[in-house]
Amino acid sequence: MSQDAQGATPDSRSESELTLVDADIHQRWADDEAIVQYLPERYRDDGLVLPELLYRNPGEFLRQDERTEDGNKPGSDIGKIADEHLDEHDIDYAMLTGNSWFNLAALPNRDYANELARAYNEWLVNDVLPMDDRFIGSLYVAPKAPEKAADLIREYGDHPQIRQVLLPGGAEVPYGRPQYWPMYEAAEEQNLAMAVHPFSEGHGTSNPPTGAGHPNNYIEWHTLLGAYYMGQLASIVTEGVLVEYPDLRWAFIEGGYGWLPHFMWRLDKNWKGLRSQVPWLEEKPSHYIRENVWFASQPVEEPERPEHHDQILEMMHADETLIYASDYPHWDGDDPTWGLPQMDEEMERAVRHENAAELWDLPTDGSDLE
Amino acid sequence: MSQDAQGATPDSRSESELTLVDADIHQRWADDEAIVQYLPERYRDDGLVLPELLYRNPGEFLRQDERTEDGNKPGSDIGKIADEHLDEHDIDYAMLTGNSWFNLAALPNRDYANELARAYNEWLVNDVLPMDDRFIGSLYVAPKAPEKAADLIREYGDHPQIRQVLLPGGAEVPYGRPQYWPMYEAAEEQNLAMAVHPFSEGHGTSNPPTGAGHPNNYIEWHTLLGAYYMGQLASIVTEGVLVEYPDLRWAFIEGGYGWLPHFMWRLDKNWKGLRSQVPWLEEKPSHYIRENVWFASQPVEEPERPEHHDQILEMMHADETLIYASDYPHWDGDDPTWGLPQMDEEMERAVRHENAAELWDLPTDGSDLE
Repeated sequence: MSQDAQGATPDSRSESELTLVDADIHQRWADDEAIVQYLPERYRDDGLVLPELLYRNPGEFLRQDERTEDGNKPGSDIGKIADEHLDEHDIDYAMLTGNSWFNLAALPNRDYANELARAYNEWLVNDVLPMDDRFIGSLYVAPKAPEKAADLIREYGDHPQIRQVLLPGGAEVPYGRPQYWPMYEAAEEQNLAMAVHPFSEGHGTSNPPTGAGHPNNYIEWHTLLGAYYMGQLASIVTEGVLVEYPDLRWAFIEGGYGWLPHFMWRLDKNWKGLRSQVPWLEEKPSHYIRENVWFASQPVEEPERPEHHDQILEMMHADETLIYASDYPHWDGDDPTWGLPQMDEEMERAVRHENAAELWDLPTDGSDLE
Repeated sequence: MSQDAQGATPDSRSESELTLVDADIHQRWADDEAIVQYLPERYRDDGLVLPELLYRNPGEFLRQDERTEDGNKPGSDIGKIADEHLDEHDIDYAMLTGNSWFNLAALPNRDYANELARAYNEWLVNDVLPMDDRFIGSLYVAPKAPEKAADLIREYGDHPQIRQVLLPGGAEVPYGRPQYWPMYEAAEEQNLAMAVHPFSEGHGTSNPPTGAGHPNNYIEWHTLLGAYYMGQLASIVTEGVLVEYPDLRWAFIEGGYGWLPHFMWRLDKNWKGLRSQVPWLEEKPSHYIRENVWFASQPVEEPERPEHHDQILEMMHADETLIYASDYPHWDGDDPTWGLPQMDEEMERAVRHENAAELWDLPTDGSDLE
């Protein structure tokens, strides 16, 4: 842990020496060669052939005031992330999630996707994580190649700064299906969390974001992030992933959280009448969600009245389930200085660092990552 | 209006003489011949070829205690609906939505789907609606044939008991797309509401219910009804349907409502940053939803604590947006005697009948439908 991060805790009752963990920071490579160099010979001439998200944000996805000094894309100067974002906001640990448009689930060729994942992971552990010991990292995997994904998880999972395996929100088939379980077995074994982050929805080989079909505009696409998270969460809960891998922790990043009370109530209600379909769920479904799943705050809910936010926090048991994320340097990021609505001290500690420390098994006493 | 329905209003401050409007009752034909007789010659030998929902409810979809005296399926004895459900619960008007598995949007052949819709409508106006003047009806249309759907809407829309046009929740492309607008023009002209009800999701020619892919179990499929409603609602709002047809009212039936605050907040927030994509939305998106869209209560939200339900009602402006539905005779129906959580009198009046009267332009003084 860096000296910068060892500030006073916001409340003396807290035993944790942490002040803030950021669950979603997008670092990227300045030049494709950074990744291509780690590809096997057979793919090197191809370079990076990735399905592009065809929903366009007219104001750009990235904060243009965060471009690097040499004019490169925001997030591509890794030192700048540490010096300006982490130092400035007293961030103890920052989960690096990479370049959102690295859409491995939407690629048709699963071998190529797997090699891209490996190349990304090489770049991450060789060239990114060593730059700052506050960085924690997310492995990339190709969900269409779960056995190979499990190999990658075992290959890189021992690195002390690797704490998570990232799945793109979009997929061909839901993440509860047994074909994916080798990944979960490997992640649980390596004490890594699984995370879902928006990538791959509604393009490449992915399904439309909702059953309604392909949205027309980015505003529509972006508004629906919560809807397909509901699809993935329903799958991993009802298929029994959280029962089969009770020590595996999950993060749902950037899909909102205001829908969660409805989702848990509805699933619990349905479980009362339909539990014969899911006999492995011995407790009501929300029990497993509260135990094993966390939700990142960005984009923060913005109700009409501040008390509505408090009520949503209570309904979702945010003291157990919500973690802070900035989504730096994206257009709609929630800066630590204003990105979290007012909440009581105990809740704030949970959201700012305690829940994240549990999710990623982070030391709370300021000791080094091991 | 029948004599039975002219009871005292629950609160003397209300000027309406209505006591309860039920937004979702499933009547069905006892024998396919009831529909087949109205098909054109060329389809009569085929009978009813409909995609069947392959997600099975182990306890049946229909309340088995509501079977007819001759053992036929619940809902197929239309007189029983009137005598037992409407009389017993003082229901002033009951919106008939037909047989949920009449999945016209999921049929590949749009001419056949359109003729099935016409045959259903013939059966509805000839054989069902005349049985009780408290019945109000929903026209069926084939969403893949919007021009023909518009013709059906104009052909049947003058019937005084027809108050709504029903769209299945599942589709190939979202309901905001301009290809559907001829239907909306016809419905607005005929002073009929448009409604979305679960049919066709995840089977036949429809997309998977969410971007995650096809669910495994009915419990998962049913839990996600709200997710694809989010997709349809995002489409009709952002594509400008509610601006282009300001007098056209919409009902979203059986998809829940606890997700609505999150959805409106997120869409409003995105509109602030992305309104250049939707210049036709001069007000924030939630404004149009509150003006023109209603949500049916069944399956009612069942929070852990009763005050959470009050809070959700406030967040969604339920006094403007929520209508009561029983979903009779389905397995998870909300009977009028216990199906609505406690709420204050003003809210209860709005939810029990005032909002539905506005949605379907129903007389509130006990006069006949015209």
